[in-house]
Amino acid sequence: MPNIKLILEYDGGAFHGWQKQPGVETAQQSLQEALSVVLREPIAHVIGSGRTDSGVHARGQVANFYCKQTPDLHGLIVGVSSLLRGRLAVLDAEIVPDSFHALRSATRKQYSYLMLNRRGSPVLDHGRVWFIHGSLRREAMQKAATCYCGTHDFRGFRSAGCAIPNTIKTIYESELIIDNDHMRYRVVGSGFLYNMVRIMVGTLVDIGKGRLEADDLPGIIEGKSRLKAGRTAPPVGLSLDRVFYS
Amino acid sequence: MPNIKLILEYDGGAFHGWQKQPGVETAQQSLQEALSVVLREPIAHVIGSGRTDSGVHARGQVANFYCKQTPDLHGLIVGVSSLLRGRLAVLDAEIVPDSFHALRSATRKQYSYLMLNRRGSPVLDHGRVWFIHGSLRREAMQKAATCYCGTHDFRGFRSAGCAIPNTIKTIYESELIIDNDHMRYRVVGSGFLYNMVRIMVGTLVDIGKGRLEADDLPGIIEGKSRLKAGRTAPPVGLSLDRVFYS
Repeated sequence: MPNIKLILEYDGGAFHGWQKQPGVETAQQSLQEALSVVLREPIAHVIGSGRTDSGVHARGQVANFYCKQTPDLHGLIVGVSSLLRGRLAVLDAEIVPDSFHALRSATRKQYSYLMLNRRGSPVLDHGRVWFIHGSLRREAMQKAATCYCGTHDFRGFRSAGCAIPNTIKTIYESELIIDNDHMRYRVVGSGFLYNMVRIMVGTLVDIGKGRLEADDLPGIIEGKSRLKAGRTAPPVGLSLDRVFYS
Repeated sequence: MPNIKLILEYDGGAFHGWQKQPGVETAQQSLQEALSVVLREPIAHVIGSGRTDSGVHARGQVANFYCKQTPDLHGLIVGVSSLLRGRLAVLDAEIVPDSFHALRSATRKQYSYLMLNRRGSPVLDHGRVWFIHGSLRREAMQKAATCYCGTHDFRGFRSAGCAIPNTIKTIYESELIIDNDHMRYRVVGSGFLYNMVRIMVGTLVDIGKGRLEADDLPGIIEGKSRLKAGRTAPPVGLSLDRVFYS
């Protein structure tokens, strides 16, 4: 049975998150149904690199699945993207060794979070950015963004309902890129806890708004308490950009 | 009567173009109605830097209008953007000298045209890009893009219905920027004929597809015939980015 690796883009606003669940439309379920149509065999076990929450976009989610026949990969890409037009596209498909597992083989992930900081509400970026009006201390936010780098216990940066026992994660890259009124936070890490990126971003914005100080961030991380970190940024600005494998 | 200059972003897909016309919703008409509500006086003569066609976006359209009372500019920006949420936003508003005229004072304009060249159809850029599948000779397109620079008679690059007598325009900057599967054509010129940017882009894509050669482009321009230039690219990828004033 060939093992197929997919790279996926999807609109978080079009699905109730990645993970299949009864009664709502999810990216995983819609993808499985589209694959079943295109490949003409039931595909019921697509493995994602991880869940994305409702509203969170993907520019490079990775998934894999096994099928009976070696598929026409070009036909798979075009067919699935056509069936889910405007909501989910397959960017690439390849046959990988049996041992490849989109979740367990992942070594790093990159997320980005887009913010629009101006007076007029978003138009061409509507549904893709967190709209923040009012002035932000941008340099303080940029300085703070770098403080996330390194290996830390991020238990203060997760929402209730995150049961993962190992809360120690390594952040390899963490930067805030500013282009006029567009701000893009980019982070690469060994893994992320539930809502961790959104709380990291919300904390940066709290620093930008003057509710927290950039110099306090190392202490906030060390404090290991959700109450010390900032707010949770909304899902709309977040996207899973890339999943790394060794 | 204060003269107010506005910088505007709008979604071309939300309006039947800029120019007011009976029976359909246009950006100019919607803006005038919103300004009338926010300023509490009838605003019926907003002057745009030029028309944008149905489907063409604006990231920096410029307009001006006269009003009786000196307005609260912050309130104008927030109020109009709220009334037209997701369709049109005011990015900036300022009081300018009486002599400022958004159309007549304009000296240069910058447009950009976004293309997505991959197998899976657009998702997060849906409605913002021209989706082109199949391979493109990207280097030939980049080389050809530079050939538009200079002062030329662009009468071969206009659609029927363009009655402007002076078809000689100067192109100051013309480049195709490639970032993986995203391609952005950026052009700055003294002015543009009807559909001129869309025909310039369509011609580049015809070169990319091998229907025309990059080396032929100077001759196509010199030929001054619409039949020699390439197809007209669809409006969806085009946006008016910036208008320059001396």
